[in-house]
Amino acid sequence: MEVVQVLRMNGGLGETSYANNSLVQVYIINLLFWRRKVISMTKPITEEAITQVYRSVDGISNRFCIAELGCSSGPNTLAVAAELITTVHQLSRSHGRQLPEFQILLNDLPGNDFNSIFHSLLPQFRAQLDQQMGSKSAPCFVYGVPGSFYGRLFAANSLHFVHSSYSLMWLSKVPEGVEKWNKEEIYIGSKSPAPAINVYYSQFRVDFHTFLKCRSEEVVGGGAMVLTILGRKSDNAAASKECCYIWELLALSLKEMVSEGAIDEEKLHSFNIPQYMPSPAEVRRSVEEEGSFAISRLDTSEIRWADCGSSCGGKDVAKCMRSVAEPMLVEHFGETIIDELFGKYERSLTDCMSKEEMKFINVTVSLIRRG
Amino acid sequence: MEVVQVLRMNGGLGETSYANNSLVQVYIINLLFWRRKVISMTKPITEEAITQVYRSVDGISNRFCIAELGCSSGPNTLAVAAELITTVHQLSRSHGRQLPEFQILLNDLPGNDFNSIFHSLLPQFRAQLDQQMGSKSAPCFVYGVPGSFYGRLFAANSLHFVHSSYSLMWLSKVPEGVEKWNKEEIYIGSKSPAPAINVYYSQFRVDFHTFLKCRSEEVVGGGAMVLTILGRKSDNAAASKECCYIWELLALSLKEMVSEGAIDEEKLHSFNIPQYMPSPAEVRRSVEEEGSFAISRLDTSEIRWADCGSSCGGKDVAKCMRSVAEPMLVEHFGETIIDELFGKYERSLTDCMSKEEMKFINVTVSLIRRG
Repeated sequence: MEVVQVLRMNGGLGETSYANNSLVQVYIINLLFWRRKVISMTKPITEEAITQVYRSVDGISNRFCIAELGCSSGPNTLAVAAELITTVHQLSRSHGRQLPEFQILLNDLPGNDFNSIFHSLLPQFRAQLDQQMGSKSAPCFVYGVPGSFYGRLFAANSLHFVHSSYSLMWLSKVPEGVEKWNKEEIYIGSKSPAPAINVYYSQFRVDFHTFLKCRSEEVVGGGAMVLTILGRKSDNAAASKECCYIWELLALSLKEMVSEGAIDEEKLHSFNIPQYMPSPAEVRRSVEEEGSFAISRLDTSEIRWADCGSSCGGKDVAKCMRSVAEPMLVEHFGETIIDELFGKYERSLTDCMSKEEMKFINVTVSLIRRG
Repeated sequence: MEVVQVLRMNGGLGETSYANNSLVQVYIINLLFWRRKVISMTKPITEEAITQVYRSVDGISNRFCIAELGCSSGPNTLAVAAELITTVHQLSRSHGRQLPEFQILLNDLPGNDFNSIFHSLLPQFRAQLDQQMGSKSAPCFVYGVPGSFYGRLFAANSLHFVHSSYSLMWLSKVPEGVEKWNKEEIYIGSKSPAPAINVYYSQFRVDFHTFLKCRSEEVVGGGAMVLTILGRKSDNAAASKECCYIWELLALSLKEMVSEGAIDEEKLHSFNIPQYMPSPAEVRRSVEEEGSFAISRLDTSEIRWADCGSSCGGKDVAKCMRSVAEPMLVEHFGETIIDELFGKYERSLTDCMSKEEMKFINVTVSLIRRG
């Protein structure tokens, strides 16, 4: 399964044939809360990084080029760009320098709904900028950049700042051979043997190395990247409830359907999610091995499953996860199982959340391009 | 009427509510023939210009940045870019220099169907490049740039080559006050009085000046633009069949519907097409007045109305023109008149084409940025 083909949110307007639009809208809105919360939690780190870039990179008062990787197509797509422009605006004023021209490069997989970004989000963004800056507003050019960030996307030495939130835990593909070891799980789980964990981690190392290598060619010396990845704190990739449990519960629902005869056992055994939730130590190791970037911050933060909206319960978390997982599940199991599966999953989530406060861990790393 | 809102082809997949998809497809395919023909007719001019850029611009072996303005979303969208890359590939080989990284910036109004470019056209384009260049293929980054070319779109001093075909005859808006003078016509026609012609030409001068000014900030010294505009040969903007007649026939069909009571006369009087078909002399005058670009070629060529496909008749020309004019007509007159209007128009076109060989005139100008 190539991730480029099936990995996309159930996004846009009228793009999916297996879910009606109003449902899709609800999914996206739910998922937004987590992302929005993460963006606001990491704002101080982003601001610190952009300030450092502004102070150290030559020619930055002429042109400031920002890339948002995994931009999606919703209210968060341009949220960080808007914040960064405001910060640079303040910096320019306090340094008595001219406001640079901005280039905002919005990247996501080719299946992302770029039309709705250009048609709906961009006019709002421009209106907001005009309101904020009035007549002093500098030109701001917004482009759509379709493609996988596990390949080159931008011209050499062209980027000053890269931001990505909740995208880099997605691997370029399901790790090869993992189905041999990981029959009962769909991601690393409490029953995954060491070889399953190893192939998952190896794939992450290969992909993250490729990512850093590509960006190192694109980011100018002194330029920065702030990446937030869904991850974990613990060194143990399997034993911890802090990362795997959200998928373990989905695996349990799938197993239930196997035992009821609704899903073929072989089908379950061959299904694995192309995701890896790294620890800060693993992120550090990859950055140091690749060598082009220096780590200026490496933090973790927590976000509750229940932070997916006001009074968010198992039903809402199930919807969020459905928006993430449905294309992959449909591709592998077909459409017919989906409603029942997410019914079961919702009950498990509700039960689990009533007993315990469940959390995601975010790993945020702030990097400076050496050079 | 703001052109940014209503001027777009009846494009994409499932975007229009007033025409079914199969029809839309037919429209686009018909219109493509004219554009494709023009692109192949102007190929020698494009090649000459890109060769000049390759020889004269510093640092061109690192990065070659090409913008396609009014790119639309069909087989022609990436056609010129593909040719240009092939030419640069040959030039690099014959000069023994490395192949540059390419940036292809695809611009059109925000309502253009960028999703279908990224989803359908881009994979074909990449496959074609890989086949042509094999392992020697350099990175080629393709971005979508939504916005009007009557404003800044690109970073200062960032473009090496700009191409545009059949887009610059569109004005930024219907000339103000034209409805006072141009009641019986919808574009400049044989009955248009001098003031109507003057306001049309004034709007063209303002818009084309703005266009040149914006591009002059974006194109590097020694960079080139090749622009093909639907235009005319004659100095007289009104008397000539070579540009106005295609719209005059549509005006006649509208008038027929007024006399039948299907359209309100006032509605017809207030409708005008935001287009101007300039002569080479007018193009030259604007370029010289703005002053940033030197003209290296200024040619006209002809294309027959009947060149819109194999055995193309009035029916096909009517379809082409419908794909161009329908959004504007629906916005002004409503949906209900459209089918009947184009039935009448088709009969006029068929009649006219049976008596005379009707032609469009293309004005192609090749410009070099001074500096």
